[in-house]
Amino acid sequence: MKRREAALRAVAHLVREKGRSALYDLTGLAGGFPLQSEDLELLETYAGPALFEEQLELWGKKHLSGDKILALNRTSSGILATILALVKPGDEVLHYLPKKPSHPSIYRSTELVGASYREIEGDEDLWIKPNTSLLVITGSTMDHKIISLTDFKMALQTARENKVPVLVDDASGARIRTIVYDQPRAIDLGADMVITSTDKLMEGPRGGLMAGRSVLMDKIKTKAYQYGLEAQPPLIAGMARALEYFRPGKLLKAIKRKDKVYQLLKKDFHRIEKTPTGVMLTPTALEEEFDKRNIKTKLSADENAILLAMILLRKYHILTIPAVGMPGASPTLRMDMAASDAGRLDEYEILNSLLGSMNLLKEWDGNQQIIKEFLFE
Amino acid sequence: MKRREAALRAVAHLVREKGRSALYDLTGLAGGFPLQSEDLELLETYAGPALFEEQLELWGKKHLSGDKILALNRTSSGILATILALVKPGDEVLHYLPKKPSHPSIYRSTELVGASYREIEGDEDLWIKPNTSLLVITGSTMDHKIISLTDFKMALQTARENKVPVLVDDASGARIRTIVYDQPRAIDLGADMVITSTDKLMEGPRGGLMAGRSVLMDKIKTKAYQYGLEAQPPLIAGMARALEYFRPGKLLKAIKRKDKVYQLLKKDFHRIEKTPTGVMLTPTALEEEFDKRNIKTKLSADENAILLAMILLRKYHILTIPAVGMPGASPTLRMDMAASDAGRLDEYEILNSLLGSMNLLKEWDGNQQIIKEFLFE
Repeated sequence: MKRREAALRAVAHLVREKGRSALYDLTGLAGGFPLQSEDLELLETYAGPALFEEQLELWGKKHLSGDKILALNRTSSGILATILALVKPGDEVLHYLPKKPSHPSIYRSTELVGASYREIEGDEDLWIKPNTSLLVITGSTMDHKIISLTDFKMALQTARENKVPVLVDDASGARIRTIVYDQPRAIDLGADMVITSTDKLMEGPRGGLMAGRSVLMDKIKTKAYQYGLEAQPPLIAGMARALEYFRPGKLLKAIKRKDKVYQLLKKDFHRIEKTPTGVMLTPTALEEEFDKRNIKTKLSADENAILLAMILLRKYHILTIPAVGMPGASPTLRMDMAASDAGRLDEYEILNSLLGSMNLLKEWDGNQQIIKEFLFE
Repeated sequence: MKRREAALRAVAHLVREKGRSALYDLTGLAGGFPLQSEDLELLETYAGPALFEEQLELWGKKHLSGDKILALNRTSSGILATILALVKPGDEVLHYLPKKPSHPSIYRSTELVGASYREIEGDEDLWIKPNTSLLVITGSTMDHKIISLTDFKMALQTARENKVPVLVDDASGARIRTIVYDQPRAIDLGADMVITSTDKLMEGPRGGLMAGRSVLMDKIKTKAYQYGLEAQPPLIAGMARALEYFRPGKLLKAIKRKDKVYQLLKKDFHRIEKTPTGVMLTPTALEEEFDKRNIKTKLSADENAILLAMILLRKYHILTIPAVGMPGASPTLRMDMAASDAGRLDEYEILNSLLGSMNLLKEWDGNQQIIKEFLFE
C-alpha cells in the first residue's frame, strides 16, 4: 500500500512539475478525457451539456451508425437499461458470444428483472425460444476474441426471423472488429442496438456509447434516466471530444507497434509474450530474466516485478500496473501499445528502459537499503 | 426548437468570445465542474483517478461525516445500489418524508427487487414491520420542505430499536438542513448512511455522494460496480474540487440575496413570487405586468415569457430556463440566487435588466419582424 501511494505521488509530481508529456502511461487502463479549457467553462453553463449532447449525436452516429445515440455511465449500465426496457419477468435473454467466459453484466441484469439466461458459444447451434425477448451478441470478448462474420450474420438472421431484437455488445469490438478485422459495423449488419466502451481502444473516458433504432432507444433512455444510468455532462463532453479526435489509423499503428516491440524485445527477453494490444512479462518470466543476468534482489518473483515497475516509473517515466496496482493485483508487467502515450515511445526506447533497469538492479546487488528507499521514498 | 437552438448558440458564442464571466446563468440547473487544467492532465493517467478518490474521501467526510465515502453517478443510482445491497424480495422499504409527493427513485428501486414499499409523512405515526429491511428518511424534499429535528430523531430511534438500517436521502438537505436550519448532519444524528446531490446548493456536477458505516458501504459499493452505478473519475474529480471549494457562508448569502431581490423587485413587479432559493414570474404574472405597462406583443402568455428570457439573455447576458427550455417545458421565469453566477449580480442590476427589457418591448410595439429576428437570429 505504501509502495502504491509512493508511485501515485511520483506520477502526480511528474505531471504537475514537468507536464503530462513527461509521463508514458502504458497501463492501458487510463481513460482519456480530452477536454479543452473552453470546454470546461461551457460545461458550467446550462447550454454546455446541450451542445455536447448534439456533438455526441453527430460523432456517435459516425462511429456506430444508427438513428439515435445514448450515452451511458458504463457499458454495464447500458446493458442494464436495455434489459429493464425490453425484458419482462419470465422472458429469456439469449447471449451469443465467440467464446466463454462471458461478461457477467448480462447475466446479472437478466436475473434482476426475473428473466432466464442462456449462453451459446460461436460454434454451437443458435436457436430462439418462444419467450426469448432479447438476443445479445458479443462482438469481441474481453480477450479480443472476435465473432466470425458468418456466425454474426447467421445469428442476426435467426433473430430477425423470430422478430427478436438484437443488442450487440461491441465494447472493444466497435473498433477491433471493424478496423483490425475489417468487418461491417453492427448496425450496418442489421443489429437493432449496439453498445461500445469509450475507453477501449480509443481515448475517451470510461463509459458506454449506445446507438440504435429510435423507438428502442427512447424506451432505453427512459429507463436509464429513471435509475440513474445515463452519462453525466462532463462524461458526454469527454466522449464527444474523444470520438471527434478518434482516428482508425492510430489503432492500426498500435497493433503494428506491438509487433515491432515484441520482435525487438524477444531477442533480449525470451519469455516476453503478446497481449491483444501489447506485450507482457509475467513474474515467472521475469525471474528467469533475472537469473540469466545473475541479478539477485532477495525479493519474491512478484516483488521483483513491482520493483522493476518502480524503476521504469522513476527512471524512465514509464507507468505500468505493478507500480500502482492494489495489493494483491496481478504483478504481470504489461505494456499496452494502444495506450495513447505509447505513440511517443519507439521500440528501442522501450528496450533500453528494460535493459537499463536490469543494469541498475545488477549494480544494486540486492542492497536492501537502496531497494527500500527506491520503493517507498 | 429553433429558438432553443438560437439561445444555446448565443450562450456558447458569449462564453467563447468573452469568457465564462460574461454570462450570468441563473437557471440553477447548471452543474458545476470546477476542475483546473492540471486536473485534466492528471485525469488522463492511471494515477489521477486514485488521487481524486483520496481527495473525495477527505472532503466527503468533512461534509457528511461517516466512515467511508462512495461516489455515485446520481443520487438515484445510489438509492438503487443501496436497495440492491440491503433489500431482498418480500422485504419492505419504509419511506419517511416531511411531505408527499416523494421522489420516485425509492419506490422504483424497491419494486425492481420485488420488495414492498410504504410511505409515511412527517406528522403520521411511524411503525416498523417485521419484514422492513430499510428505512429511508428524506431530509429535505424537492421543494425544500425539511423534516423537523424531533421527527427525525424519533424516526432514527424507532429504526434503531428495531435494528433496521437507515438511509437519509439528503439530496439538498445535507446543506439546507445543516446550514440554513442549523440541524446536525444525518450521520451525526445516528443514521447509518446518507446520500446527497453534489449539484444541489453547491457547485458540483450532478452526482450522488454517499457516506456511512464501512460494512454497509462495502456492500453498496460492490452492487454499484456490478451494475455500473458508480461515478466515473471525471465526476469524482469534479465532486472533490466542488467540496474543497464549498463554503456554507455562500449559501446563507444566497438566501439573503433572494430576500433582497424579492423586496426590491416587488415594488415594480407586484406578482413576483419567492422560490426556495430565488424568485419567479409566472406567464400569468408577466401578462399582468405587460398589461400594466401597456406592452402588446401579439404573442401568448407563454411566448411572452420566452421572449423576455431571450431579451435578458441577448441584452443582459442573463440566462433563464424559458430561453433554453425544451418545447413544452414550463415558461416560468425563475432566477435562482443560489446559482454560482448570482453572486456577481446585485439586486439593482437584476431590477434594471427586467425594467430595461420591458422598455425595449414597449419600443418594439409588437413589431413581428423585430421579435422574430430577435428570437431566432
